[in-house]
Amino acid sequence: MRENFEALAKGPANYVPLSPISFLTRTAGVFPDRTALIYGEKRYGWGDVLARCHGVASGLKDRGIAKGDVVSVLLPNIPQMFELHYAVPMAGAVLNTINVRLEPETVAYILDHSDCKILIADTAFAPLVRAAFEILGREIPVIDVADISQDRLGEDFEDLATSGARLDHVLPDDEWHPIALNYTSGTSGRPKGVVYHHRGAYLMSMGTLPAWEVPMHPVYLSVVPMFHCNGWNHPWAMAVQAATCVFTRDPLPALIYKAIADHGVTHFGGAPIVLQMLTDADDKPNVPFDPPINVFTAGAPPPAAILEKTKAMGLKVMQVYGLTETYGHVTQCVWREEWEGLSAAEQADLQARQGVAFPMMEGTIVVDRETGQPVPADGETQGEIVMRGNAVMSGYYKSPEATAEAFKGGWFWSGDAAVVHPHGYIQIKDRLKDVIISGGENISSVEVEGVLYRHPAVAAAAVVAKADEKWGEVPCACVELRAGAELSEAEIDAFCREHLAGFKRPKAYVFCELPKTSTGKIQKFKLRDMVSGA
Amino acid sequence: MRENFEALAKGPANYVPLSPISFLTRTAGVFPDRTALIYGEKRYGWGDVLARCHGVASGLKDRGIAKGDVVSVLLPNIPQMFELHYAVPMAGAVLNTINVRLEPETVAYILDHSDCKILIADTAFAPLVRAAFEILGREIPVIDVADISQDRLGEDFEDLATSGARLDHVLPDDEWHPIALNYTSGTSGRPKGVVYHHRGAYLMSMGTLPAWEVPMHPVYLSVVPMFHCNGWNHPWAMAVQAATCVFTRDPLPALIYKAIADHGVTHFGGAPIVLQMLTDADDKPNVPFDPPINVFTAGAPPPAAILEKTKAMGLKVMQVYGLTETYGHVTQCVWREEWEGLSAAEQADLQARQGVAFPMMEGTIVVDRETGQPVPADGETQGEIVMRGNAVMSGYYKSPEATAEAFKGGWFWSGDAAVVHPHGYIQIKDRLKDVIISGGENISSVEVEGVLYRHPAVAAAAVVAKADEKWGEVPCACVELRAGAELSEAEIDAFCREHLAGFKRPKAYVFCELPKTSTGKIQKFKLRDMVSGA
Repeated sequence: MRENFEALAKGPANYVPLSPISFLTRTAGVFPDRTALIYGEKRYGWGDVLARCHGVASGLKDRGIAKGDVVSVLLPNIPQMFELHYAVPMAGAVLNTINVRLEPETVAYILDHSDCKILIADTAFAPLVRAAFEILGREIPVIDVADISQDRLGEDFEDLATSGARLDHVLPDDEWHPIALNYTSGTSGRPKGVVYHHRGAYLMSMGTLPAWEVPMHPVYLSVVPMFHCNGWNHPWAMAVQAATCVFTRDPLPALIYKAIADHGVTHFGGAPIVLQMLTDADDKPNVPFDPPINVFTAGAPPPAAILEKTKAMGLKVMQVYGLTETYGHVTQCVWREEWEGLSAAEQADLQARQGVAFPMMEGTIVVDRETGQPVPADGETQGEIVMRGNAVMSGYYKSPEATAEAFKGGWFWSGDAAVVHPHGYIQIKDRLKDVIISGGENISSVEVEGVLYRHPAVAAAAVVAKADEKWGEVPCACVELRAGAELSEAEIDAFCREHLAGFKRPKAYVFCELPKTSTGKIQKFKLRDMVSGA
Repeated sequence: MRENFEALAKGPANYVPLSPISFLTRTAGVFPDRTALIYGEKRYGWGDVLARCHGVASGLKDRGIAKGDVVSVLLPNIPQMFELHYAVPMAGAVLNTINVRLEPETVAYILDHSDCKILIADTAFAPLVRAAFEILGREIPVIDVADISQDRLGEDFEDLATSGARLDHVLPDDEWHPIALNYTSGTSGRPKGVVYHHRGAYLMSMGTLPAWEVPMHPVYLSVVPMFHCNGWNHPWAMAVQAATCVFTRDPLPALIYKAIADHGVTHFGGAPIVLQMLTDADDKPNVPFDPPINVFTAGAPPPAAILEKTKAMGLKVMQVYGLTETYGHVTQCVWREEWEGLSAAEQADLQARQGVAFPMMEGTIVVDRETGQPVPADGETQGEIVMRGNAVMSGYYKSPEATAEAFKGGWFWSGDAAVVHPHGYIQIKDRLKDVIISGGENISSVEVEGVLYRHPAVAAAAVVAKADEKWGEVPCACVELRAGAELSEAEIDAFCREHLAGFKRPKAYVFCELPKTSTGKIQKFKLRDMVSGA
């Protein structure tokens, strides 16, 4: 009877707070000597990594870091950045990774808003740190990671990492305890601080592994910046399988190809722009990778043209989709056997869908924004993507109104407009704010961009709304050409007439290098400003 | 600061109770038409399975089943048994699977002790049910699964499964809610009711997938009886990867070989006795399986001789270890690359170790029973295996003293004696009660059995203590010969003299068919009784 079951209590034997810290502890015990991290000539075994993380965590506590304190980090993808994904939470603290390409004003804003207690920074970014402190009007204790520069600001990270100190207790008391604080890119207004908890990071990692079919001992290439959604939580997931993680500091095609050749990379993630750089690189291999390399791509819908090329190269690309608020990817375009017989172009079109929820998510559906009801799975009716599950943020730090707004009705509202195909495959039509409304018709900028990308002279394209007296808004195409390519406005316009309904055809063209974020996302807000003459 | 983090609350958008029910809901949405279950000529898609489970869950509620009520099940491994792993928890109820080979007395005891409200039984077991009710002195409402017999006792399961009813809410409010009640085999005294919760079943499943490297769409053969630890939680795990699960009702070698040939089985689990039956079968295939089939084995340490043979057959066997109290397997003998160059015999010896904790476990260590301190990883010092983690039972149903005893000091005490090798690989030396103490020396019955198994005439062996005036106890070997084989006591004794220290050599031999449980575990308590003349 029910009361007999309710008498059975949680205790230390049968209830352990979920935390990715447990992944490292276990793998370091089983494979202490196996190579965990490779960076240039450097090698760290899993036992080394654990010992270094204990040293850093212990050092942070010695320097006054207490439960719930924020430790900010300004690092590229190098082993120390990986280690801090464990060391900071082991100290009970919250990891705040900051995009190293941000301007000093925003870095200062984040350091201040996050209540940062200690900043761990690559000495190559010392000028950025000084400029941020100048704006902040105060200094924060700095721990230096001297990787390629000796421009010192504080203590040396290696002194902590090699101290040999051990902590007795590294798990949180409560799995809801914060593990990371990640600021959104803030395309409009100030960035918001997204809080992740240990439970979410654990479940995100464990859900990713079966979905990506990650075997034991994968060779993982660290391309996704760890300052974006903690590298899609891969630094945590990879520990479960005792991976070897390869770092190149910068995600340049030549370095990526060298890493693949030197270490036999089996898995990596990267934005579509990274895939495009790889397919465009002069020094790319002549024969396809065999076995194929497993690639997650996210950050923008990958143009079908790129998916066709990556397939031919031996890259097994799965598109995934998510937001900073969802720990990174929460939907995946799961391959279906009935797609096998289709042409490469048809397959690429299907793979350009954002797909279905990962196992760790409870629901990812598209609802009518007015009624809150799911839209029909007809591939046509647009709504907003809403999500529910254990890989959704705790909320926005110090922003109760924004948190309440994001969670209204018991769902997280993504701000992305999408349709639903059969079997629940979601396809994003646009960020809601990127939809162009022209003469009462909704135009998907993604659709128009898809056509532009098919033109061989186009390297990148972004379509934004331009104010128009007659139509309200019209699509304006911003086009970046391939090196050496030539294309006239008349030529691209003729191409668009051929492939697009009249109302969707761009009414203006701008040829320029497109502004991009550090992950290769095109910054449409800058283009909108440019087009509107702001 | 800490209080700003603490202000962020759990809500329906970012906190969902962990439950394996979510696996089915998700997979049925993505792959409704993909074959989930195969049984003879029958096929069920994932959409069918979900619909049938909703129907059964709804039917159980209509028949008065409420939250925390127990539904008992007497079924072999057939699709309905798989479905009940979802349908019963969807109704908020607790699944109590009963070993179909138990005697009526014990079935009656379990039905009574579990407070069973409804019994779902295969009509082939109607005589067993009637006998149990007779002993119980009352009847419990029965739902019939008429698979191979029409000996009716109640309503037809199919009427519920095909009702078309849908439930709006299938998840528990609390992930600690009980999902299953599994009675131990009770080698001594009454069986105890082990309670599993939804959280544990979810984490057990998610931890098994990366450890077993289960890809999308495996073809899983259901061999492990689902009335043992819910088939090691595989009915839940397999839904995550949209597996095809094949059922044969009975785990006979001919049926297993046919299923492999017909359906391309990629994964199954089974006790060492099943592996031995497979290697001994006359109709086994002549060429090794290619690619190899992934096999979990557990329930007893597999003799090295069997591991050598299964390897040659193309069965990639990983030994796992656990107890009913730990949802099944919680340690795995993870393969190490440095074992590659060793001989088959050396590899088999290493694979006979029980290994290291699965990812879902926090700790599985061996401690000195007196001091509670971990024993050194020297491969020699014996202690008792203790465990801690989210795949440890809530406790024993209505047995607070036994629960407290099992969890003393914040660990679950396994009752198994083991040593620890480097990297934490555990090797069981014996059930503590199976250790033979002869003249002050501890003798591992497992070690002596390992020697006996190496003799070509031996099909099965068990070594138990026999009272002895001089030595206190001496080892007595009970030996079952292969069909047609002949072996004298003098011959086997000579063989043992060659391979064992004098004090470990059996001082008595019994040639007989060994009594076994339904999973093929040899029932040593019966042999002890026989040897002692009880």
